[in-house]
Amino acid sequence: MGLESSIAPKLRRPDRRPKHTPGSYQPPYPSFSARFGDEVDAVVMASFGVQSRDADDPRAAAALGEMREARSAHDGPGSVQRARYIDAQGYTTTIDTAYWSDPRAFERWFASVGAAWLDPDRVEDGVGRFLELVTPDLERFETIFSASDRPEGVAEVGTEMSGMIEEHAYWGSMRDRLPLAQTDPLWPSGELVVTGSGRVRDVRLHGNACLIRSGQDITDTGDRERDLYLSTVEPPLRAGMDFLRDEGGSIGCYDNRFMVVLDEDDQPTDRTFGMSWWRDMAALEDWAASHLTHVEIFGAAMRHLSSFGPETRLRLFHEVTVPTDVQQRFTYVGCHDETGLLRAR
Amino acid sequence: MGLESSIAPKLRRPDRRPKHTPGSYQPPYPSFSARFGDEVDAVVMASFGVQSRDADDPRAAAALGEMREARSAHDGPGSVQRARYIDAQGYTTTIDTAYWSDPRAFERWFASVGAAWLDPDRVEDGVGRFLELVTPDLERFETIFSASDRPEGVAEVGTEMSGMIEEHAYWGSMRDRLPLAQTDPLWPSGELVVTGSGRVRDVRLHGNACLIRSGQDITDTGDRERDLYLSTVEPPLRAGMDFLRDEGGSIGCYDNRFMVVLDEDDQPTDRTFGMSWWRDMAALEDWAASHLTHVEIFGAAMRHLSSFGPETRLRLFHEVTVPTDVQQRFTYVGCHDETGLLRAR
Repeated sequence: MGLESSIAPKLRRPDRRPKHTPGSYQPPYPSFSARFGDEVDAVVMASFGVQSRDADDPRAAAALGEMREARSAHDGPGSVQRARYIDAQGYTTTIDTAYWSDPRAFERWFASVGAAWLDPDRVEDGVGRFLELVTPDLERFETIFSASDRPEGVAEVGTEMSGMIEEHAYWGSMRDRLPLAQTDPLWPSGELVVTGSGRVRDVRLHGNACLIRSGQDITDTGDRERDLYLSTVEPPLRAGMDFLRDEGGSIGCYDNRFMVVLDEDDQPTDRTFGMSWWRDMAALEDWAASHLTHVEIFGAAMRHLSSFGPETRLRLFHEVTVPTDVQQRFTYVGCHDETGLLRAR
Repeated sequence: MGLESSIAPKLRRPDRRPKHTPGSYQPPYPSFSARFGDEVDAVVMASFGVQSRDADDPRAAAALGEMREARSAHDGPGSVQRARYIDAQGYTTTIDTAYWSDPRAFERWFASVGAAWLDPDRVEDGVGRFLELVTPDLERFETIFSASDRPEGVAEVGTEMSGMIEEHAYWGSMRDRLPLAQTDPLWPSGELVVTGSGRVRDVRLHGNACLIRSGQDITDTGDRERDLYLSTVEPPLRAGMDFLRDEGGSIGCYDNRFMVVLDEDDQPTDRTFGMSWWRDMAALEDWAASHLTHVEIFGAAMRHLSSFGPETRLRLFHEVTVPTDVQQRFTYVGCHDETGLLRAR
């Protein structure tokens, strides 16, 4: 079977050194990466959040309604996914994760309608709003999908899926998929900066912090696979996500959210994802490879996949981003002190 | 606490790129690497083996007696360890693993007394002898020890132990410890070559094959730690070693031996080690990081170490070697067809 590098042709370096000899490795199952148009040199990943103590606060619903309206304006995002979780402080948090493949379109949209949504004058007490903005160039993120027929996340603003890729299913493959890692060790650089106080606060992480959004979709599973997933995979996954949320700081995880994707009527679907920020890719790798909470997740997922083999209908994907210090910015308005990257201080 | 690189100062490259920023990583427990004298540029690791169907065959005892005598001759090894196991075909196999820090001394010794031991005319039917010879330069092996006060293996021909090292306790640290990996991806190169047939056969692996000798020593443990080790760590360790011995070929493991170290009277001690050859370091890394058999070993060892913390008396070490194609040679005389690297054909 023909395999190709996860790294798009125009980003491949002749002297790259993946762990396995290019052309020689046969992964045990197929995976795919998103491809982007030739004109794309950077993307926008924007998380617009609404936070309220009371899940049914009508002001939160109003803020979300405003966002739904704003995102349909001209130059709006190419893709949006709404998802929800309850944070460690008990606040219901709903986030629209929006993607643009053209940063200039984002800038026009934001100037026109996006910024107004975050205007402190519109943010009511007890119903915080935030924007977590990441604008990586193509060298600074990578994606992987277990199936090529349903793009998710940033892939929805891509042009197509790659063929079957080489760099997956072995430890270190995440790094081998990230184009910049061909030439850069991705060490953290510079300082985290928090500005503002009171109602409006901005965070800018140091360079080479690492964001992962890692999702699972059981929409297409039959009863037997769904039952097995819910009874054997989901519990350790939830335990690991809780660990990262509550104790992640001890291992370089600044924040973690385990979210349920919502449908058009804001009802929960069969799709979930974890979204976490890390000091650097190495800290994420260390947790994934060595920490008991992830060893349990990994073991459960392996047993699940080997139970169903090619009949598996569970879908998995992730996207991992390592922005520079100026490719990210986090703005919290009227949010509590432990919200998102405010915890990274 | 002061940490230093596992890579000796004279082998460190200014542009090296370990996974963690040098000087920033704090491993959760101490580890150490062997250091060698300034005059050392390569070492010799030689495994002299005797194989017999009957464990009590007096001709095997005689061959081992000859070896014990030969190794005390002038220019003999700086260190020897005798160990035993029963191979997959049921042959009792006893191996003297001998180390020299001066390859020229080895050559003189071998010409004078070592080669005679392997003379086909001295090898009796049913009692095979072999030599597995590896002569890496200093850039092509790395060592790690959980305690610095008892060198083992190649460290016994070193001068001292390093201080506490940085590159350990995270995935990818084995590669970060290997000096050559600073500049080389260690991909396999060239072809495996088998020459001879019948009683005398030679194997030369392709370049960048990978040897690991990984040991555990429970000599100093108290009753409680010993019981826990034997009941929770040793069983998955043995299962993993059996898997590699019997099915390792499917994942790039050419051969594996799980051996018990013998004392001066050839009686079993509390020290064991696994010794395996791999297609390349990546194959070893993949097994260690992802295969269920090693995930079980790793989980059990982590639970053991966290149960006893600084009171742990279990000692662990390994040495990993990635020789070029001309830095290894395997000679089997009168051995069965599945012996050692003959299986790698």
